[in-house]
Amino acid sequence: MNTLRHTMSLVSLGTFQLGRRMKSQHVRGFLLGTGLGLSTFATVTYAQAEAAKVNRKLNISKFMAEPITDQSVLLADKENMRHRMELMIMEIQAEFCRALESEEFSGQKFKVDRWQRKEGGGGVTCVLQDGEVFEKAGVNVSVVTGMLPPAAVQQMRARGKELKENVKLPFFASGVSAVIHPRNPHVPTIHFNYRYFEVELPDGKKQWWFGGGTDLTPYYLDENDARHFHQTLKSACDEHDTSYYPRFKKWCDDYFHIKHRNESRGIGGIFFDDIDEPSQDSAFNFVTSCARAVIPSYLPLVQKHKNADYGNNERQWQLLRRGRYVEFNLIYDRGTKFGLYTPGARYESILMSLPLHARWEYMHEPKSTSKENDLLMVLRNPKEWV
Amino acid sequence: MNTLRHTMSLVSLGTFQLGRRMKSQHVRGFLLGTGLGLSTFATVTYAQAEAAKVNRKLNISKFMAEPITDQSVLLADKENMRHRMELMIMEIQAEFCRALESEEFSGQKFKVDRWQRKEGGGGVTCVLQDGEVFEKAGVNVSVVTGMLPPAAVQQMRARGKELKENVKLPFFASGVSAVIHPRNPHVPTIHFNYRYFEVELPDGKKQWWFGGGTDLTPYYLDENDARHFHQTLKSACDEHDTSYYPRFKKWCDDYFHIKHRNESRGIGGIFFDDIDEPSQDSAFNFVTSCARAVIPSYLPLVQKHKNADYGNNERQWQLLRRGRYVEFNLIYDRGTKFGLYTPGARYESILMSLPLHARWEYMHEPKSTSKENDLLMVLRNPKEWV
Repeated sequence: MNTLRHTMSLVSLGTFQLGRRMKSQHVRGFLLGTGLGLSTFATVTYAQAEAAKVNRKLNISKFMAEPITDQSVLLADKENMRHRMELMIMEIQAEFCRALESEEFSGQKFKVDRWQRKEGGGGVTCVLQDGEVFEKAGVNVSVVTGMLPPAAVQQMRARGKELKENVKLPFFASGVSAVIHPRNPHVPTIHFNYRYFEVELPDGKKQWWFGGGTDLTPYYLDENDARHFHQTLKSACDEHDTSYYPRFKKWCDDYFHIKHRNESRGIGGIFFDDIDEPSQDSAFNFVTSCARAVIPSYLPLVQKHKNADYGNNERQWQLLRRGRYVEFNLIYDRGTKFGLYTPGARYESILMSLPLHARWEYMHEPKSTSKENDLLMVLRNPKEWV
Repeated sequence: MNTLRHTMSLVSLGTFQLGRRMKSQHVRGFLLGTGLGLSTFATVTYAQAEAAKVNRKLNISKFMAEPITDQSVLLADKENMRHRMELMIMEIQAEFCRALESEEFSGQKFKVDRWQRKEGGGGVTCVLQDGEVFEKAGVNVSVVTGMLPPAAVQQMRARGKELKENVKLPFFASGVSAVIHPRNPHVPTIHFNYRYFEVELPDGKKQWWFGGGTDLTPYYLDENDARHFHQTLKSACDEHDTSYYPRFKKWCDDYFHIKHRNESRGIGGIFFDDIDEPSQDSAFNFVTSCARAVIPSYLPLVQKHKNADYGNNERQWQLLRRGRYVEFNLIYDRGTKFGLYTPGARYESILMSLPLHARWEYMHEPKSTSKENDLLMVLRNPKEWV
């Protein structure tokens, strides 16, 4: 039991915050239930690095790969937000990948690609493909520097950023993003992305901001799942500002909208961008909380449904909805566009979000009394879940 | 034999022109070979309407549906290019759909949707889905009028059109387009689109132009197919201007390029836009020839390969290539973008180009000695085929 307590104390920010709102027994049950073994978090490096005031070697053994930035650089300036973010996202990636792996029946593991970008920086792309539980799961970290392409400057200006046109601006971007497409149609797809951005202005000043979000795309609507998912995100937001969840929930509904079909990609979650207040520290802590809420928001749904019965009808519907997912990502998603138009972008990492299989049927319309239609109704009229 | 000659004389422009370059026996063989029965073209209405100098009722029985424009209007002003184009594309649609249907083993037919657009005009969408030979085949005609959306004006300006910004411009657009995804991976996918466009300028003058193209997307490279396909298109072009094929072949290679992967969607064909010379008549005749070259360029390939053996490997590769097709269409294709951003657009008709199934694998790379790789080499380095 002491061992258990010790392990739990090392579980990092988000789940801890969540724990404060739950009974200890419940938290413990959840953690064990998700299959996060006792040893998994015994050496959580980011939390240690934050806590430690003496200089020492980073323990990167629990990351999926070596960080992009040289360890000595990361350690030499631990207060630098670039470095804090990099360690946080490396940790989130590893925790999430391990959590997913623990749900696979025959021990299927993520394939890890650490890559470098000749224009500056690189990333770690982890993909588990053709698993028994996860048909395609991609979890990507990237830490890149370079000059902002004009299209990106224009996009940022359109969003209200005060950036000069036709000037080359050095930028830094880092983030973790993931899309998980499970095999069983009763297990929803999840997507999340948390990122930090810096742009250097011609006068030498720096603009910085955070962005991110987590959203769920079920194939069949389970209202309890929807409530659990949204409640978990809301709790993570509320720790920082109770105005966040309602605002970012709406932003999510607006963003993940397939305009030409006038339906949402899924049942939403939270989405935000350009967060640069109240302080860099607070914004980072908020984003960290959100990132840490991913596992508790999602893993229980995987566990609950991964063994559910389904047949060809459910599979075909799932594939059709995946077609819609592809439509959104390739036509509307800003991240995908920004990525694909960035010179030297690693398109395999950007497009890992696409499902292993998708289907397009002309004029498909589910029967009005079907479960498929129940989902469509919610996609056409986003609901408040909590 | 007299019946046969009579039928042949009614076969319209393109195949007739093609016929001039071929032995009569060959042409006859081709026509029978494609399964176009003797009666199929016995009442080709457009050719008749063109030939007839007396006013009479249009015979629309061979079209897939009634034309969009009222028959009395079509007949009252037969010289109007809008009307000539509408009749031509209705005819092309019907010929192509019947030719494809004749290749199906158990008589699967196209489903026909005639639709109207509340902003003006409408279309006829024909889809054959889940056939034995054609997994998904869509052949669409549309004849629409309205006000050009600002994004479209800007796109046209970027292409060199002299159009004022921020002015609402009335437009007319009509065209036929098709994408055929066969089931057998040895049968290539074909796409074609022929269109006519008018914009009314504030001073009352009219700009008009034609655009179009036909291109092939094989899953396995058959060099004889590639040569036959390109030669058929070249012959259609050469009848009008021998500079056309080389120019439009290159335009096609440049256009159907998946930039982020640095590979072509297929082995090309022809592609052109903004054709407004030497005269409206000549431009229309050229486009008509190209449209009529579609069946002879493609049907022989269907017949040659539709019974070829294949296994799961070939199927998976086909699905992966279809994923690339989706990427091109949703990320780069101007027609798709223009369509989806046009208010009141019928997205089901625009997206009928997407395959029934597609697949995305992370970091898929065929073996260097495989047939799959032979195709990739050509997609990365477009070839001259004729």
